[in-house]
Amino acid sequence: MSATTSSKPHASSKAAVLDAIRAAGTISRVGLINATGFTAPTISNLVRKLINEGLVVETGHAESTGGKRRVLLQLNHAARYAVGVHLDHGVMTYALTNLGGVAVARIARPGAGAAEPAVVVARIAAEIATLIDSVGVERGRVLGVGLVFPRPLGGPLGPALEHATGLPVVLDNDATAAALGEQWTGGFGTATAAAALYLGTGIGAGLVINGITYRGPSGNAGDIGHVSVQADGPPCWCGAQGCVEAVAGPAAVVAQARADRTLAAATGLAESAKRASVATDFAAISRAARRGEQRALALLERSARYVATATRGLAAIMDLDVLVLTGPGFAVAGSVYLPIVRRELHGYAVDVRLSRSAATASAIGAAALALESELVPLSHGLRLPERLDSFSESAG
Amino acid sequence: MSATTSSKPHASSKAAVLDAIRAAGTISRVGLINATGFTAPTISNLVRKLINEGLVVETGHAESTGGKRRVLLQLNHAARYAVGVHLDHGVMTYALTNLGGVAVARIARPGAGAAEPAVVVARIAAEIATLIDSVGVERGRVLGVGLVFPRPLGGPLGPALEHATGLPVVLDNDATAAALGEQWTGGFGTATAAAALYLGTGIGAGLVINGITYRGPSGNAGDIGHVSVQADGPPCWCGAQGCVEAVAGPAAVVAQARADRTLAAATGLAESAKRASVATDFAAISRAARRGEQRALALLERSARYVATATRGLAAIMDLDVLVLTGPGFAVAGSVYLPIVRRELHGYAVDVRLSRSAATASAIGAAALALESELVPLSHGLRLPERLDSFSESAG
Repeated sequence: MSATTSSKPHASSKAAVLDAIRAAGTISRVGLINATGFTAPTISNLVRKLINEGLVVETGHAESTGGKRRVLLQLNHAARYAVGVHLDHGVMTYALTNLGGVAVARIARPGAGAAEPAVVVARIAAEIATLIDSVGVERGRVLGVGLVFPRPLGGPLGPALEHATGLPVVLDNDATAAALGEQWTGGFGTATAAAALYLGTGIGAGLVINGITYRGPSGNAGDIGHVSVQADGPPCWCGAQGCVEAVAGPAAVVAQARADRTLAAATGLAESAKRASVATDFAAISRAARRGEQRALALLERSARYVATATRGLAAIMDLDVLVLTGPGFAVAGSVYLPIVRRELHGYAVDVRLSRSAATASAIGAAALALESELVPLSHGLRLPERLDSFSESAG
Repeated sequence: MSATTSSKPHASSKAAVLDAIRAAGTISRVGLINATGFTAPTISNLVRKLINEGLVVETGHAESTGGKRRVLLQLNHAARYAVGVHLDHGVMTYALTNLGGVAVARIARPGAGAAEPAVVVARIAAEIATLIDSVGVERGRVLGVGLVFPRPLGGPLGPALEHATGLPVVLDNDATAAALGEQWTGGFGTATAAAALYLGTGIGAGLVINGITYRGPSGNAGDIGHVSVQADGPPCWCGAQGCVEAVAGPAAVVAQARADRTLAAATGLAESAKRASVATDFAAISRAARRGEQRALALLERSARYVATATRGLAAIMDLDVLVLTGPGFAVAGSVYLPIVRRELHGYAVDVRLSRSAATASAIGAAALALESELVPLSHGLRLPERLDSFSESAG
């Protein structure tokens, strides 16, 4: 253990209390003492500050257990909001969440395609305004924007979006955001080592250890798409061989479907002269599989077997206890992948399930990212999301 | 973030201070305030206690910077000791380390083979006594014993060894212990995400995140041996296909060498009618490769390519910044594996190196485990080694 991991006991105390209240739903001051380890005067003082700032409200009393009845505290969910924007190749998904991370509004819009960055930023800013106005939330209550995207994209948009919206913008990748979304919406339960396996245009994973997002020293943790499932397999764009994304990711599935004339015709892929996005094509293949098209189903099952193999590696390395399948790919094809991943992980003590909000998990997580960034300044020794300046570099 | 990750600011303060002193080598009280975030009176109080217990000594003054000269503190290395025992199929390795984790004595003895557990325990207890007496350390200064072994072995020995030695015994697997050994002996430097890749009879990895050993909820984190490098490859004993241990682990290398008559003759494997241990045979193959035996070298290089592929998956998932190759396998064949692993990880920001104590890292780590267990009761939110009762269950 190095000295840098020693906890600084006071700096994050307000955030820790806020977080304990959020995690508990409702909790008494005595409960907070137990949950945080802080002393009674410290809790009393911090709770008063949080009430004064309007972030926490008193909300009735706990059942009497003979002694003095305890006042319960809860987050004032409507006190603050945050915007999450998930930028993907084919679609942009927006979520407005309250202080508890609950989505109060969501919209989906077509992806940016090849538009100029300036045009994209102006569009995102306008759509954020539409989102906020749609539910009548005061602008002053919106803490910031989380903007997330597949790993190799998006960094340069951050500063321009800060300028265009007048709000702080935090960046991250979509898989990590999806994990944060699951964490905030309870999808990970009380897991110690949880992962969100994300299927979008590519394959990624977001990792949460003891409730804290694990990003790794360069912010690239969970890059399961480049786990090899065929050491002697075909080359990946990354330079290695047999990466699961190259062998069985959505783009590979779409390419395989297009190469099969019968299947391309059956799924409607043959007709789309101008190629749609990978996500759109992958959804078409998934719909075909669901209506009983055997070749489409076989293609997805083949993909699922390789994805399951890579996922077993993830589970073995991280000793996962919960794995949630999420992202737009699993939103349309989760029913094919889930049993195959479960079968491969038989023998591991991991609970594998489909996200209840696979299509919007990254946008909700992006909003949670903005909430965390503004409310929880310390990372308890693990890495917090980078601010714009350092992120753009690594996302280059 | 859940409430359980909120730091309990006071319970581990003594351990945190001790750890900060160990990590720094020498440090002033002011330095400790900066390193731990504790207040001046807290540091003053804790340091007094540590000095009274004989764990810390004052050791001269820092260079004057104009103001009052600061008294430097350091661990009293000879105040306490711990024993590490690494139980492997072919060999038992013992280390006695001081409070700083520095080995003051090491011995290696033949493995237990098929001996009765009671006989093995009696032998280990006797060899521990020999180890301690060999350097004249008082028994009362020995805090405990760390006993480590490959994942599927050893659990039941713990309670009997506690009884036989009169010392507390902590158990763990050899790969995690090797990582702890690297951490304590400085092999990981200032890494944020570090792994010890362990090659013994099998393949494992020990993970250290922000200086803290990461074991995972069931204690099985880092199980890289069962990462598949050939999704459609040969079956592994674990039930899955193409696990790197089955395709390219030391036992597989030995089996391949034995199947090749020319090679079996050239390495002396053909003569050992009664099969030696995998470790012994693997060492013989490595020696043959070093003296220019091309078939032996080719066999190890093949293994190295698959090990490198699995390791790339580990690096991608954990976003490693340091990877140390360690364990008896790399002690004899590290020069073959190192360049191949480095080549595979080209493009990742990870520093790959050979352990400076590959043969004894697990024994040293086992002793460090005993030190941590007795001195550092809190885990800063990550998992601490299990005590006997719960470990035997999962190691069953």
